[in-house]
Amino acid sequence: MRRFPEPISNLVAAFSRLPGVGPKTALRYVYYMLKQPKSDLGVMARALIQLGERINVCTRCFMYTERELCDTCEDPKRDTSLICVVEESRDIATIEATNAYTGLYHVLGGNLNPIEGLTPDAIRIRQLHERLLKDSSIQEIILALSPTSHGETTIMYLTKRLAPLGRRITRLARGLPVGATLEFADEVTLGDAMKYRK
Amino acid sequence: MRRFPEPISNLVAAFSRLPGVGPKTALRYVYYMLKQPKSDLGVMARALIQLGERINVCTRCFMYTERELCDTCEDPKRDTSLICVVEESRDIATIEATNAYTGLYHVLGGNLNPIEGLTPDAIRIRQLHERLLKDSSIQEIILALSPTSHGETTIMYLTKRLAPLGRRITRLARGLPVGATLEFADEVTLGDAMKYRK
Repeated sequence: MRRFPEPISNLVAAFSRLPGVGPKTALRYVYYMLKQPKSDLGVMARALIQLGERINVCTRCFMYTERELCDTCEDPKRDTSLICVVEESRDIATIEATNAYTGLYHVLGGNLNPIEGLTPDAIRIRQLHERLLKDSSIQEIILALSPTSHGETTIMYLTKRLAPLGRRITRLARGLPVGATLEFADEVTLGDAMKYRK
Repeated sequence: MRRFPEPISNLVAAFSRLPGVGPKTALRYVYYMLKQPKSDLGVMARALIQLGERINVCTRCFMYTERELCDTCEDPKRDTSLICVVEESRDIATIEATNAYTGLYHVLGGNLNPIEGLTPDAIRIRQLHERLLKDSSIQEIILALSPTSHGETTIMYLTKRLAPLGRRITRLARGLPVGATLEFADEVTLGDAMKYRK
């Protein structure tokens, strides 16, 4: 295939690294950017630089923030007896959108996945453990991890590891998602929905 | 929904403008970038800046290039009796990949689409006309536009407008794509394939 001018192929290479973006999509993005005013290129470039310069993780819960502590950790109205353990910062936005939770968070930074090098030391399990030891106000640990195989492994590991601390350990309910039809529910979900009926 | 730190929401906004990218995908891209080494942010930012600073359009055919003339226009081995009219620069890469064409190009910069303001003056039809008037070596004009309604409109318009110049005007063959099954071919394509059988 014909070679593109270097500035085009460099940006194609950079965009191609984004999740789910192949060379064709990356090229489409680049051609789109070429058709925009040059100031738009600057806007995206500055946003990238600022992301690197201004975003840190909260020193307490490891959520992305611009300050030392994130909005949630600094909010005096949050229920400090609850801690919700999530895989990534983005899950916090999803949970907050439900308005069903008012406690604190802890971002693991991944699920256990030894094949990809995500051992207990690679995600923030030690930090969670230390935080629980130090903070006796936490009564309940909600393991809000995805019900995938890696999520389940992480839930099992954490349940065992945190049990000696004597706090209540819960996980998100499993069941039929809203709008689902019984016909297309998988057996495990339907089984759980039956078992945990109320 | 909970507000993200400004550097995150700024980059989400910038990524959301890319074609086919909504806020959820943009956020996924941003979280991906946050997990990469900070140098990767700089690499993408620099690629964006360089795109704006180093890419121009060829003064003859309007393809994207770093110089005054693009590779094709500068290549003495190209067949200067053929000119292939395409919608966008990206189509040139696709045509070059076939190795079926050795002539020159002309990038229109869009198809006619009066509803979106793409009138004959908004795309490079005048420049094509002038180039053909000046360059008597061009014998054949290949209208390599997509067989969509806007592409067909543009082909019809160009065929009429360029007819007085007395050059051969052709368009890409229509027919069944390789690997297609008759069963799923639409009627127009199948009708064309029958009409232009050989």
